Amino acid sequence: MKDHDTNIPALMATIGANAKAAAAEMAFASPDAKAKALSVAADAIWAGRESILSSNALDMEFGRSKGLSAAMMDRLELDDARIQSIVDGLRSIAAQEDPVGAVIDGWEMPSGLHIDRVRTPLGVIGVIYESRPNVTADAGALCLKAGNCVILRGGSESFHSATAIHACLLEGLHAAGLPEAAIQLVPTRDRAAVGEMLAMTGVIDVIVPRGGKGLVGRVQADARVPVFAHLEGICHIYIDKDADTEKARKVVMNAKTRRTGICGAAECLLIHKDIANGLGQQIVDDLIAAGVEVRAEGVTGSVPADASDWGKEYLDMIIAARVVEDQDAAHDHIRNFGSSHTEAILTENAKAAARFFNELDSAILMHNASTQFADGGEFGMGAEIGIATGKMHARGPVGAMQLTSYKYCVRGDGTVRS
Amino acid sequence: MKDHDTNIPALMATIGANAKAAAAEMAFASPDAKAKALSVAADAIWAGRESILSSNALDMEFGRSKGLSAAMMDRLELDDARIQSIVDGLRSIAAQEDPVGAVIDGWEMPSGLHIDRVRTPLGVIGVIYESRPNVTADAGALCLKAGNCVILRGGSESFHSATAIHACLLEGLHAAGLPEAAIQLVPTRDRAAVGEMLAMTGVIDVIVPRGGKGLVGRVQADARVPVFAHLEGICHIYIDKDADTEKARKVVMNAKTRRTGICGAAECLLIHKDIANGLGQQIVDDLIAAGVEVRAEGVTGSVPADASDWGKEYLDMIIAARVVEDQDAAHDHIRNFGSSHTEAILTENAKAAARFFNELDSAILMHNASTQFADGGEFGMGAEIGIATGKMHARGPVGAMQLTSYKYCVRGDGTVRS
Repeated sequence: MKDHDTNIPALMATIGANAKAAAAEMAFASPDAKAKALSVAADAIWAGRESILSSNALDMEFGRSKGLSAAMMDRLELDDARIQSIVDGLRSIAAQEDPVGAVIDGWEMPSGLHIDRVRTPLGVIGVIYESRPNVTADAGALCLKAGNCVILRGGSESFHSATAIHACLLEGLHAAGLPEAAIQLVPTRDRAAVGEMLAMTGVIDVIVPRGGKGLVGRVQADARVPVFAHLEGICHIYIDKDADTEKARKVVMNAKTRRTGICGAAECLLIHKDIANGLGQQIVDDLIAAGVEVRAEGVTGSVPADASDWGKEYLDMIIAARVVEDQDAAHDHIRNFGSSHTEAILTENAKAAARFFNELDSAILMHNASTQFADGGEFGMGAEIGIATGKMHARGPVGAMQLTSYKYCVRGDGTVRS
Repeated sequence: MKDHDTNIPALMATIGANAKAAAAEMAFASPDAKAKALSVAADAIWAGRESILSSNALDMEFGRSKGLSAAMMDRLELDDARIQSIVDGLRSIAAQEDPVGAVIDGWEMPSGLHIDRVRTPLGVIGVIYESRPNVTADAGALCLKAGNCVILRGGSESFHSATAIHACLLEGLHAAGLPEAAIQLVPTRDRAAVGEMLAMTGVIDVIVPRGGKGLVGRVQADARVPVFAHLEGICHIYIDKDADTEKARKVVMNAKTRRTGICGAAECLLIHKDIANGLGQQIVDDLIAAGVEVRAEGVTGSVPADASDWGKEYLDMIIAARVVEDQDAAHDHIRNFGSSHTEAILTENAKAAARFFNELDSAILMHNASTQFADGGEFGMGAEIGIATGKMHARGPVGAMQLTSYKYCVRGDGTVRS
């Protein structure tokens, strides 16, 4: 969508300059001011829910006219319960410990220097998202908590909802005496704004894309600034020969069917050959009975698997299943076909679990637990701005703490280097 | 320099594939194996110093024929003492605690999950450097210690010295049973190899350039992979009105004159107006007496400063000096002209020092200490692969620990998400 009345490069340059200027002030905003901004914003959202719902109705109408899928429409839609959950998220982030200024580590040197490593904000975060209006509040709040400025670019579908929620965040900033430019929402639906953001080196320190593979892939390919993201969540579960029957049946069912559309949903079972005919087949039968299409090799599934099923993210009631010779073969399969997001081992054998933890290198490794726990809230972060599968800076769920950097504060007493 | 016999893209693709394959193995190499590789390499370097010095003589001859500056020739030259210091560096890194596998943090969740954050290697590091042969050993050793594979691309001037040192590192890897591809040296002087490295996304996780502003600037501008670097070290010293006379005189003299060519050398003094005529002028006079050219505004220096002196990295016996209205003005000057490397405040006023630490955001902030302490060794890291002024992942001196990432290891007991 193009907006012919707006000079997008000029608009984005102004937004960027405002963010940079505010970042220096936000970096030493007091924990109380930040918590107050979040609480007031939460109050404003709850008090203003009628108006937010009206704005959301406009978006829903636009979405229908654009022929959005039912899944997209569902993500877009707000109701009282969803607004309540946005408000709860803000309050939970407000209540978290402030990460900025914390002394992460400190030590003395023989020179007499005392060295502290102290947590600081990253600076300016860009968030590019699609239809979920709650991202406006979650991402804005997490960036604010960590002392950052954020430039939010919501999807054109959620334009009115995001604008209404953003207005409440601004109320919070005003009430706390913090700069308005701490949380900016790009005020146009023109897609050129995204291209500008991806090239704003020197202004944006990191970009977080939230949405489908198309959006994330484009951002990863084109961004000139660092990106925290995961392109796919191809989560594997290795069912070891020493797996407990009941735990394994329960965990696999949960990991596949609790919600199929999230990045932590299991997409491939690897079954040790010694239990293929026993527990392995039973779990496959469980899944088929629950309505899951199992594409199988070595066990009897719904249909035979072919090579294209390895490394596939279905996000649906479909799963691949493969019998493997041993744990090494399972590791090899995960290394070859995984997306470094989340993998689980089901076993009562502590040695096998330790090997799984040591030898694999996904962002999240689970032992006897459902891959659906791959989520910032379930990790105790209050909320998450996304899940990162890269190895630079932030890995796994990205909360306020992962949106910080550090500096060294060094104390001497007229100390000189010899 | 071009090498017409070599297909550089094919060569670099092979080196990259070897590094990726070895990285999976290195990631769970035992701490003992890594320490052994480093000790054996140290022994091999000391035992083989005659041969290393002969190789170095070839490089010196090449350097003379190319008309390298005296400073470059000095960096290039090896002697027994410098080889001893390379050996000491390897032994010190060998003796350090192994960072990989350490549990950084751990907590329980109400769901029953136990979550550990565990340190892991980054993967594959690319190091692009100029004439210092010791970088081959330091960078190779730090990457190895952190369980990474490294691709070293030394300057054409130090080609023979680097090759000889690299051979000793390979001896260490062999003795410890570790893959040779853990430390690869690009075996050509062809500059096209650098361009290839900068574009090896998917293979190289981070590039560390070591050298002058020309090299670092080119890498920062052209790299498609993340970079740990500092372009300049424009270090400021703010002499507060409450500075102690003797400490201030001693620290400024050390920060400017101990070594002028390093990135931690002071380049600009900011002097509170209340002490401009007293301590400020005295320090300027000290510096002039020591042979430093002081380009001054508000005090009497060697010559008047002009606008081009703010934010200038002299790397020489030259310093800028400016009288400021108050601490806020000093902070503003540093924000406008600093390079986020290292700044110091000299004061006996704890409140002023706390403000300096809170409100500025350089990688290193010092109180009553010389900026020349900006160094991995002086921070207790044994050695450093460089100093980073960016805020992503690593900041300040980059040692083995900064060359790691983390993963989450999560333990349940058949735990499912509701």
